[in-house]
Amino acid sequence: MSIQSFNPPVRTLMGPGPSDVHPRVLSALSRPTIGHLDPKFVGMMDEVKSMLQYAFQTNNELTMPVSAPGSAGMETCFVNLVEPGDKVIVCINGVFGGRMKENIERYGGIPVVVEAAWGDPIDLNQVADTFKTNPDAKMLAFVQAETSTGALSDAQTLVRIAHQHNALAIVDAVTSLGGVPLKVDEWGIDAIYSGTQKCLSAPPGLSPVSFSQRAVEKIKARKTKVSSWFLDLTLVMGYWGSGAKRTYHHTAPVNALYGLHEALVMLQEEGLEQSWARHVQLHHTLRAGLEKLGFEYIGRDGARLPQLNAVKVPAGVDEAKLRSILLNTYNLEIGAGLGSLAGKIVRIGLMGQTCNIRNVMLCLSALEAALPQARA
Amino acid sequence: MSIQSFNPPVRTLMGPGPSDVHPRVLSALSRPTIGHLDPKFVGMMDEVKSMLQYAFQTNNELTMPVSAPGSAGMETCFVNLVEPGDKVIVCINGVFGGRMKENIERYGGIPVVVEAAWGDPIDLNQVADTFKTNPDAKMLAFVQAETSTGALSDAQTLVRIAHQHNALAIVDAVTSLGGVPLKVDEWGIDAIYSGTQKCLSAPPGLSPVSFSQRAVEKIKARKTKVSSWFLDLTLVMGYWGSGAKRTYHHTAPVNALYGLHEALVMLQEEGLEQSWARHVQLHHTLRAGLEKLGFEYIGRDGARLPQLNAVKVPAGVDEAKLRSILLNTYNLEIGAGLGSLAGKIVRIGLMGQTCNIRNVMLCLSALEAALPQARA
Repeated sequence: MSIQSFNPPVRTLMGPGPSDVHPRVLSALSRPTIGHLDPKFVGMMDEVKSMLQYAFQTNNELTMPVSAPGSAGMETCFVNLVEPGDKVIVCINGVFGGRMKENIERYGGIPVVVEAAWGDPIDLNQVADTFKTNPDAKMLAFVQAETSTGALSDAQTLVRIAHQHNALAIVDAVTSLGGVPLKVDEWGIDAIYSGTQKCLSAPPGLSPVSFSQRAVEKIKARKTKVSSWFLDLTLVMGYWGSGAKRTYHHTAPVNALYGLHEALVMLQEEGLEQSWARHVQLHHTLRAGLEKLGFEYIGRDGARLPQLNAVKVPAGVDEAKLRSILLNTYNLEIGAGLGSLAGKIVRIGLMGQTCNIRNVMLCLSALEAALPQARA
Repeated sequence: MSIQSFNPPVRTLMGPGPSDVHPRVLSALSRPTIGHLDPKFVGMMDEVKSMLQYAFQTNNELTMPVSAPGSAGMETCFVNLVEPGDKVIVCINGVFGGRMKENIERYGGIPVVVEAAWGDPIDLNQVADTFKTNPDAKMLAFVQAETSTGALSDAQTLVRIAHQHNALAIVDAVTSLGGVPLKVDEWGIDAIYSGTQKCLSAPPGLSPVSFSQRAVEKIKARKTKVSSWFLDLTLVMGYWGSGAKRTYHHTAPVNALYGLHEALVMLQEEGLEQSWARHVQLHHTLRAGLEKLGFEYIGRDGARLPQLNAVKVPAGVDEAKLRSILLNTYNLEIGAGLGSLAGKIVRIGLMGQTCNIRNVMLCLSALEAALPQARA
C-alpha cells in the first residue's frame, strides 16, 4: 500500500453545503493544536460562545457548538428534550422534517405530523388546528429553512402558536443561521440547532445549538436519563458552561473550533443584518439570470430562501449530466434534488462566502455554456 | 463586541491527548473544502478506510471514522450492539471503563462489573470466573489502554475468554491505536473504537471504529431500532460502505478528514511496527529520567503503556503548581490525574508525533528546573 497525500481540487461550492470556506478560515484550521483544557483554549471557547449568541441573537447561557455535524445538533435537541411518551407536533415539508420525526420516535416520543407539499412552507393554520386536537402536545418541531426544497417557513409565528399552547418550540436552523433573519430571544425559540458549513462558511463538523431557560428546565426535570452519553447536555454543560471550573467531558475538536471562531469573527465584522441583505440582493441577481435561462423555481413567492435556489431544469435537460459538466469542466458544484425531487431539480446554494457576485456570474455563464451539452 | 482572530500559543503537548500534530497534518487541514459527495472526496474516503484497516490490522469491511470524538466512537459501539436486556460484562480499572458502563446502562443493557484497582490491568481469571457465573452474558467490554492510569490490559487473552463463552468483545483502543500492538483480526476483536488525537496525532474530533462480521450480524438482527439516528450504523454504512452508490447520511467533516488522511499516510510511511518500537524505546529513556528525578510510576511492571506515563510526583511537590509552571514557562503541557487520582499523579504522554527524543529531553530538563519551585 502506498497512498499519497490528498490534494483536493479547488471547487466553487454552490451546492446545498458545504459552502466556500474563506482562506482566513482555512488558515485558522491549521494553527497549532493546543489542549482542550488549556486556559488559552478555554478563553477561545468563551469567545465562540459569545459570537454564537450574537449569530443566534440570544442571551441563552446554554449556547455552544456540539462537537459533531448538524445531524448531531438535531439529535442533541431531541434526545435531551423528548422523554418516552412525550407528544411532539412535527412539521414535514422536506427531508429534514422527516428526519426530525425519526428522531422523536427513536427517543420514545409520539410524533403528530403536520405535512405540507415539498417546496411549500408550513401552513400556520394547520399547525394551530393540530394543537387544538392535540392539547397534550408538549413540543412543536419544524425546519425554518428546508435545505431539500428552499422553502422558508414563518418561524416567528410558528413559535408563537406553540407558546399559545404551552409547548416548547424546536427549530432546525441549519441552512438559515446567518443567511436570513433569525431572532432566538425575540421570537422565543426554545431549542435550536444549526450547522457550520452553510451560511457561516466554516467546514462541516460542528453544530451550534442554543436552549432557552424553559428548555433547560424541561431537561433538568427529566424522569429518565438521556439516552445518549455523548450528547447529554447535563454533562456537556460542565465543559461548555461558563463561570465555574470546566469539567472534562469529551475532547473538543480543537482545530475545527479555530475555524468556527474565525468564521464567526468574519460574520461579526460584516454584521448580521448586512449578511442577510447580501443574501437577498445576490439571490435576486441569480434568480433573474436563472429564469432567463429557462430554470423555474419551485415553491411559493415570499416563502423562498435567498441562499438555496431550488429550480426545475429546462425541459429536455438531464440534470445529472448538467451537474457533471459543471463539476468537471468548471470545478463548480451545484446540488441534486433529494427524496421525491431527485432527478427533477437542482439546488444552487448562495450561502455565506459562496454568496458573492463573482460566483453568481460564474454560475450563470457556466450554466449557459453547459445547457446545450446537457440535453438528454 | 469586537473579538479578534485567535492565535494559539505554540505548545508541546505531552498530556494524555491531544498530542503534537505534525505540520504536514496541520497543513492538510487547510486545503480547500470540497463537497462531501464529490467524487474526489469519495475517493479520499476509500483511502482513509484502507489506511484505518491497516492501522487496526483488519480486513473488516465496516471500518471508518465516526464524525465526532472518541466518546462518540464508544457510543457508536454500544448503541448499536446493546439491546435492552443484553447482559454485558464490563471491566473497570479507570475512568473510561466506568464510562463504558454508563453507556451500557443508557441503552438498556445490564452491566456486570469486573473491577481492578486503578493502575492495574484487568485480571484475566476474574473475567473468566465472571463468565462462568454469567453464562448469559452476550458481550465483554474493556479498555486496552486506560488513559486515566496508563495501564495496559491483555486484549488478546480477554478477547479469547469472551469468545470461549460465545460473547462479543468490545475494545476501547483510544490511546492504544498506533502506539502499542493491536491486531483486530488476529485477536478476533468484534467492535473497536479509537480517537485521532492520541498516537495517530491528528487533531481531536474523529473516532475510527471497526466491526467484525459477527458484530455486523448482531446489529442486523436487532429487534429494536438503534436509539440514535446519527450513530445508527445501518444508516452510516450507506455513506461509508464501498461499492454501491453512496447515500447521503450526514455531512462529513471534510477538512478534519483531510487531516486524518495525512496522519495515516505518515503512519504508513513509518510502518506500524516501527511506530510501536519507537514508543517503547523513548518510554525507556523518559522513564529512566523521571525515576532519577524522584517520580514513581503507578501500576505494574509489564502492564504499563509506553505512551502514557502516570507517575506520582516527588513528596512535597504540588502537582498543580508543577503543571502550571511547565505550561506557563516552557509552553509544555502535561496532564493531571483524573477521578480518584486527581492531585496525586501527573500523566506524561508520549503519543504519536509527541514521541520523539527532543520532547523527552525538553520534558526532563523542564521538570528538573521546575521541581524546586513547585514545592507546596
